[in-house]
Amino acid sequence: MPSADYEEQKAVARANRAFYRAFESQDLAGMSGLWDDDPGVQCIHPGGETLVGRERVLASWEAIFTHSEPLRFELVDVELRVEGELAWVSLVERIAGPEDEPAAEAACTNLFALRDGAWRMLLHHASPIQRRFFDA
Amino acid sequence: MPSADYEEQKAVARANRAFYRAFESQDLAGMSGLWDDDPGVQCIHPGGETLVGRERVLASWEAIFTHSEPLRFELVDVELRVEGELAWVSLVERIAGPEDEPAAEAACTNLFALRDGAWRMLLHHASPIQRRFFDA
Repeated sequence: MPSADYEEQKAVARANRAFYRAFESQDLAGMSGLWDDDPGVQCIHPGGETLVGRERVLASWEAIFTHSEPLRFELVDVELRVEGELAWVSLVERIAGPEDEPAAEAACTNLFALRDGAWRMLLHHASPIQRRFFDA
Repeated sequence: MPSADYEEQKAVARANRAFYRAFESQDLAGMSGLWDDDPGVQCIHPGGETLVGRERVLASWEAIFTHSEPLRFELVDVELRVEGELAWVSLVERIAGPEDEPAAEAACTNLFALRDGAWRMLLHHASPIQRRFFDA
């Protein structure tokens, strides 16, 4: 029988997938529902400054959804950890543009908190991968 | 009387300061001692890929300390949260070069885990701030 930990890991993985589904489909309501109500929620888009608070974070998603073509992601090197009521997911976003432009990659850290039985997003930190310390 | 939470917050703040002290003084032994033994520790330097595991993470610090001039940091917008045995710190690193070069800024997420009474680093994610969504 799967452990409670395993069930929570699956729940975090679902929340993480829901985040990328909302991102790809430019679903602002879905994105809004994923983020926690905590006033300290934070979002760092690639190359961007730290946006703090639901209002600024959601305004940034609205701006991205309004002004960008939809993106498609392949998520690789996904690592997921649950510690009590906090969880973090790290992964590499492989991003393909609308016209199959050459893929870009971003290193990503996502934090979730368990609130009334639901895993909600506390932080999304994505940064462009421009150079490598080591050969892959 | 300070709460236990407050004491833990102070302990996380100390661990975070120790990280920047080791960084500024290029103290590889100090840096090594700060990182957790967990095989999943991760480090993302500005513009870099995700480095996983103590060996790769510490090799990257050794390379930075060997090939770079010492950096000085001003830490601003520091937010700190403890949830059980996991803690995260977010901040902006204002980086001044050795000759008072114009400062660069990096958005930073640091994760710590409580292990045998000590807060040890699980993740350091720093990304260059190149553009702003909103006026500061």
